[in-house]
Amino acid sequence: MDPVHQEFAHAEGGITAPAGFLAAGVSAGIKKSGKRDVCVLAAGRSVPAAGVFTTSTTAAPPVLVSREHVACGALRAIVVNAGNANACTGEPGMRDARAMAAAAAEVLDCDAHEIGVCSTGVIGVPLPLDLVVAGIIEGVADLDSTNGEEAAEAIMTTDTFMKQVAISVTSGGRTFTVGGMAKGSGMIQPNMATMLAFITTDAPLSALGCDEILRSAVARSFNRITVDSDTSTNDSCFLMASGAEGGDDLAPGSAGYDAVGSAVLEVATALAQMVVRDGEGATKFVTVTVRGAVTEQDAEKAAFAIANSPLMKCALFGEDANWGRAAMAVGKSGAVIDPSKLEIVFAGIVTCKDGTATGFDEEEAARALSEPEIELLVDLHVGGAEATVWTCDLSYDYVRINGDYRS
Amino acid sequence: MDPVHQEFAHAEGGITAPAGFLAAGVSAGIKKSGKRDVCVLAAGRSVPAAGVFTTSTTAAPPVLVSREHVACGALRAIVVNAGNANACTGEPGMRDARAMAAAAAEVLDCDAHEIGVCSTGVIGVPLPLDLVVAGIIEGVADLDSTNGEEAAEAIMTTDTFMKQVAISVTSGGRTFTVGGMAKGSGMIQPNMATMLAFITTDAPLSALGCDEILRSAVARSFNRITVDSDTSTNDSCFLMASGAEGGDDLAPGSAGYDAVGSAVLEVATALAQMVVRDGEGATKFVTVTVRGAVTEQDAEKAAFAIANSPLMKCALFGEDANWGRAAMAVGKSGAVIDPSKLEIVFAGIVTCKDGTATGFDEEEAARALSEPEIELLVDLHVGGAEATVWTCDLSYDYVRINGDYRS
Repeated sequence: MDPVHQEFAHAEGGITAPAGFLAAGVSAGIKKSGKRDVCVLAAGRSVPAAGVFTTSTTAAPPVLVSREHVACGALRAIVVNAGNANACTGEPGMRDARAMAAAAAEVLDCDAHEIGVCSTGVIGVPLPLDLVVAGIIEGVADLDSTNGEEAAEAIMTTDTFMKQVAISVTSGGRTFTVGGMAKGSGMIQPNMATMLAFITTDAPLSALGCDEILRSAVARSFNRITVDSDTSTNDSCFLMASGAEGGDDLAPGSAGYDAVGSAVLEVATALAQMVVRDGEGATKFVTVTVRGAVTEQDAEKAAFAIANSPLMKCALFGEDANWGRAAMAVGKSGAVIDPSKLEIVFAGIVTCKDGTATGFDEEEAARALSEPEIELLVDLHVGGAEATVWTCDLSYDYVRINGDYRS
Repeated sequence: MDPVHQEFAHAEGGITAPAGFLAAGVSAGIKKSGKRDVCVLAAGRSVPAAGVFTTSTTAAPPVLVSREHVACGALRAIVVNAGNANACTGEPGMRDARAMAAAAAEVLDCDAHEIGVCSTGVIGVPLPLDLVVAGIIEGVADLDSTNGEEAAEAIMTTDTFMKQVAISVTSGGRTFTVGGMAKGSGMIQPNMATMLAFITTDAPLSALGCDEILRSAVARSFNRITVDSDTSTNDSCFLMASGAEGGDDLAPGSAGYDAVGSAVLEVATALAQMVVRDGEGATKFVTVTVRGAVTEQDAEKAAFAIANSPLMKCALFGEDANWGRAAMAVGKSGAVIDPSKLEIVFAGIVTCKDGTATGFDEEEAARALSEPEIELLVDLHVGGAEATVWTCDLSYDYVRINGDYRS
């Protein structure tokens, strides 16, 4: 991808910013609060689509159903309910997930295989199917290109803010729009599961193109964030391409294809970062970059070891330039290193060079770490590969949210 | 190992309980508190010994030196300092670790290769070698068979209690004694590193026997505990066999050999559990057993995924029978499972059976989880293998200890 030929611009709204998409978010009574809890995202017709799902072996029924449906490479709509994850619900859970798709297919007059299904909320509680189906029917009736925000609201569980973004990219005289919405921050809520993300574009893409672009973007965005190292049973991310911008499917490797790929990565990264910023109890947004690694896999392993270390996360909460914990995490990560070459930089301050302490100014470091956004850089100095991971700190509130909610 | 032919009994003391071992713990001025901070553990002569060390690639100089020395299969003594980990200290750190061994060898009149070296404390600060060497010389002068407790005190950093244990095992008319001491609880202290453990026995064992018995015991004891998933740069565990009980080296597979192996496992497990009970901020001691797995590796993976999940640990702190989090952890562990067969039991209460909720009594569960010792059992029902892991909960105090210590 050559950035010279790509020009990005911010666009208004979220998933309905690209032409060809309609959305709705309604209150179906699943959330006790009465807030919106059923979302429908639909294209005007069945369009090329791709999905990426949790690697968990306890994947929830909606994930199993969506994985099967999106394998055909085309979706007319995706229906989502919040407030109940339909996870660890056995065979009845599978029937409920299929019933959600069937209900949407009936009112949209399409095949059930053209419907994606997502659920998010409590694990292990049977889905209130009647409420969900009524919500889907109401949602389909409400579908409109101006309802992106309502849709983004309806997928929230305990997210403290709505997560949507849209951008346009211009390449070779053509402008494509990519929009997206997401919810969650890992396993965000007591007994709740799930990160969900939906990305739309008006670019003409084949199903294979959707799949390639989505996988590549997810690998460097949603798969590069961590709040607490826990993997949800319901994680799902979809890309739908309406083709409304016109023309033939963009050929892989063409300037337009690369531009859309870049834009999807931008949107996915923006949504992924929003998820981390809304991490449970988070007081800091932390960017962890490992460079100078032998392979990108090594860089990613080392960056995740740092980002997931409870000791490192507590030190960041305490605004303490505890570089020894970063060295410890790199050491346990399995990445190839040379201990005598390790360099560790906290918020611009070199704390460790050639594997040993530099004797930095602790007060200056504490000041730098008091900022809400922190960059943590480790240079292994053994190769040319690099990876960046985003995370948050581990605070009292994380323990309160996840430990005290019943008291 | 046939337990019918083995009889265990509690013994007084710790590492000097087996005949043939002397110890000392002195105050050398490394800890600012003035508490004991240099420990010497010595046999009357060079004896068969084995060591197991951290897998970290940022292993500290004392680990590198000890690994090299113990490779010869014999140790006369082990010298330990607390208060400084001599980790991330580069080439000067290597010189200091070698100097510790050389100083001990000189006063004990043996080869430096017969000395094990351990350090525990702050990472990245040069070792105050003069103080340590003076402590070693004083310690050697103080060596006595009654000083086991002083030695166990001298290896503590922020441990809240001293960790030692001794047992005897009788088999085939012979009685062997095994003693041990340990410190730490993962990366237990702000900027501190290390779990250290020392086990002694009066049984006659070859160096290979020591190595086999130690590795087998560590795999099912120290390698089955987790406080926060972080791996220290200094973890070390040693076994020394004085042979003072007399006779030829016990042959692998003989009743005596198996009895000593069982006793070493008992001592290692007792010490490992003490480390978890002293885990940072721990309010609960949690035993996680996964059974019905296809392989023991799968059982261990699943048990560790549960034991290390911050969400699961917070739920245990909150005394909440949040079985969905255990299901989530098993799902991300990579162990082979059948979601429809999953059974989850919290403190004796079956919360999930055949992969779905049982509708248990929440109040009864909360009462059971209010106990300080909790058993969490997951039966995968797909095989016959089992593994048990010990851990603690994740409390406000964990965050305070690791985040707030400079404020």
